[in-house]
Amino acid sequence: MKVDGKDYRTIWLSDDGWGVEIIDQTKLPFVFETVRLENVDDVARAIKYMLVRGAPLIGATAAYGMALAMYADASDTHMEAAYQQLYATRPTAVNLRWALDDMTSHLKPLAVTDRPAVAYARAAEICDDDVQTCSSIGDHGFKLIKELYEKRGTDAPVNILTHCNAGWLATVDWGTALAPIYKAHNAGIPVHVWVDETRPRNQGASLTAWELGRHGVPLTVIADNAGGHLMQEGRVDMCITGTDRTTASGDVCNKIGTYLKALAAFDNGVPFYVGLPSPTVDWTLDDGRDIPIEERDGDEVTKIQGKTATGEVVVVEIVPEGAHAGNPAFDVTPSRLVTGLITERGVCDASKAGLAKLFPELA
Amino acid sequence: MKVDGKDYRTIWLSDDGWGVEIIDQTKLPFVFETVRLENVDDVARAIKYMLVRGAPLIGATAAYGMALAMYADASDTHMEAAYQQLYATRPTAVNLRWALDDMTSHLKPLAVTDRPAVAYARAAEICDDDVQTCSSIGDHGFKLIKELYEKRGTDAPVNILTHCNAGWLATVDWGTALAPIYKAHNAGIPVHVWVDETRPRNQGASLTAWELGRHGVPLTVIADNAGGHLMQEGRVDMCITGTDRTTASGDVCNKIGTYLKALAAFDNGVPFYVGLPSPTVDWTLDDGRDIPIEERDGDEVTKIQGKTATGEVVVVEIVPEGAHAGNPAFDVTPSRLVTGLITERGVCDASKAGLAKLFPELA
Repeated sequence: MKVDGKDYRTIWLSDDGWGVEIIDQTKLPFVFETVRLENVDDVARAIKYMLVRGAPLIGATAAYGMALAMYADASDTHMEAAYQQLYATRPTAVNLRWALDDMTSHLKPLAVTDRPAVAYARAAEICDDDVQTCSSIGDHGFKLIKELYEKRGTDAPVNILTHCNAGWLATVDWGTALAPIYKAHNAGIPVHVWVDETRPRNQGASLTAWELGRHGVPLTVIADNAGGHLMQEGRVDMCITGTDRTTASGDVCNKIGTYLKALAAFDNGVPFYVGLPSPTVDWTLDDGRDIPIEERDGDEVTKIQGKTATGEVVVVEIVPEGAHAGNPAFDVTPSRLVTGLITERGVCDASKAGLAKLFPELA
Repeated sequence: MKVDGKDYRTIWLSDDGWGVEIIDQTKLPFVFETVRLENVDDVARAIKYMLVRGAPLIGATAAYGMALAMYADASDTHMEAAYQQLYATRPTAVNLRWALDDMTSHLKPLAVTDRPAVAYARAAEICDDDVQTCSSIGDHGFKLIKELYEKRGTDAPVNILTHCNAGWLATVDWGTALAPIYKAHNAGIPVHVWVDETRPRNQGASLTAWELGRHGVPLTVIADNAGGHLMQEGRVDMCITGTDRTTASGDVCNKIGTYLKALAAFDNGVPFYVGLPSPTVDWTLDDGRDIPIEERDGDEVTKIQGKTATGEVVVVEIVPEGAHAGNPAFDVTPSRLVTGLITERGVCDASKAGLAKLFPELA
């Protein structure tokens, strides 16, 4: 997507053909800064300290980490060391492991001298595949927005509410929930996005507001509390969120607070869609209530990062001294509240039958 | 209620018998500081700059403002000037006008020399009446908590979720939504409160967390996004919120986000109560959708106040430069989602019939 008119992905090869560049997402939304990665240490740090985040992007970055490893020393020993070092950065990230395994399975059979070129080619392919998946999600979701726009028959923008950041910053390009919005905007359909702040980590107010704004998509940041009221007033035409994990029957585990918006959408007859690449579907799981919910550090609730009037970025505490906080990071939206799942193969009902129709070989 | 073991109200007469003392609520939760008011200017500033807030407390403070005016100069001219000056501080506050009208109607018929004593007596009475009303709300709500506790028959605390601040800081003492909780805690029933942060102004994370904590009531601050998930997990036994305006048929207009919690409570079979003094009922209005919703400054969303690591209280911006925010301040929870209204005369259904049974002379 564009940043102030210039096309970007979240990760790309430097002009010299071997270094790798990323956007330092820890500095957003206050500073836009790209960082050049030259070796496995650089890549491990970028993943560990969340300069890159979002499952697809973590996988892509790890893939390029293996390419940089091969560029320096393509021996088996070094390959194994790079694998271990990269895997240790965020061991629970499924995409990280998948990308590392994929890379090593491509590289191991090869002669040492052939490895660097193949590694770069395969990392580029992993990135391009992700872009293609997200672009397809965008195309299928675009149709929903277009239908809504044409059915209404006015020039007023289609108002779409999103929660958290499932945009291009979380992937290589396009995003999942935001891909349909970018496609609609690029096609000239007027859209306006209600961006939930998404406490406690404020991915909406920082990342989503930044990426939509820089691409030129009109948006309004709102407190997480406001969406229900806006739906009651008819000021939301549809909701689109992402998902971290989806059950085979269509329950959606996503950023905490998604469930509240789905309830409000249901109560007000507002369509509620979820954009997802099929690998987020956990085919072994039916009931969303069986998904364990990560309880994160209460500091994420009691403290917040922002920019002072003099431009300094600081962390401030917002609760009385000694007050402690609870911080469940995700919640589960039952499939009965989900209008449809927007996947790379099309839109389906949030149900076993719906998913099985699109993914018969997996269901 | 208590602050670290010592009893407080939000407003009281100084030991010298004429000055008036308040808590500077703009400094909470970081600094607990009382301020002495000695004249009408002091009182006007305290109301205007929200050192005192909450409808009942604004009314009580204005009443003492008239008493201080009479103490300085009890002439008709001065009384009228004080009325105008105080009324101008927050002209939309219904309780402010009510208290000023009440005071002048008591004072006008009197000889100038009699006015100061009567003014102080009447201001004290207005405060005591508010305390009595809130205490009664507390007694009626207490029974609901006690029933729940006894029905469950374990020693585990009753988990109550509240949104915003409808505690003693918003009234003269006890509060409305929090009064039942204080009564239960004081009676030895173990309670634990989930305190919604309440973005954008964070009245929960700052004021509610402060007052419950200082009184000794166990609490956990949570992001506004978390409550639905906690209810899904059975970790909320009941919700109690306040209300800014209630229709004759029981629709509840309260802090933005209340509606989302009511939806989640309904979806999970969690009782959802609203604590209210009967003057918040607007008997002329049936449908909550007819209540105009105040749209406040977007800066309340894009900026946040907190304390830095070095103890300085600063305001920081949390959105990308140039991003703008929407900020509806209230929403309407339809009566169908409200389990009951806790009033000073008892608990009733959130319906025309329910309210009429308790308040036949008003309905």
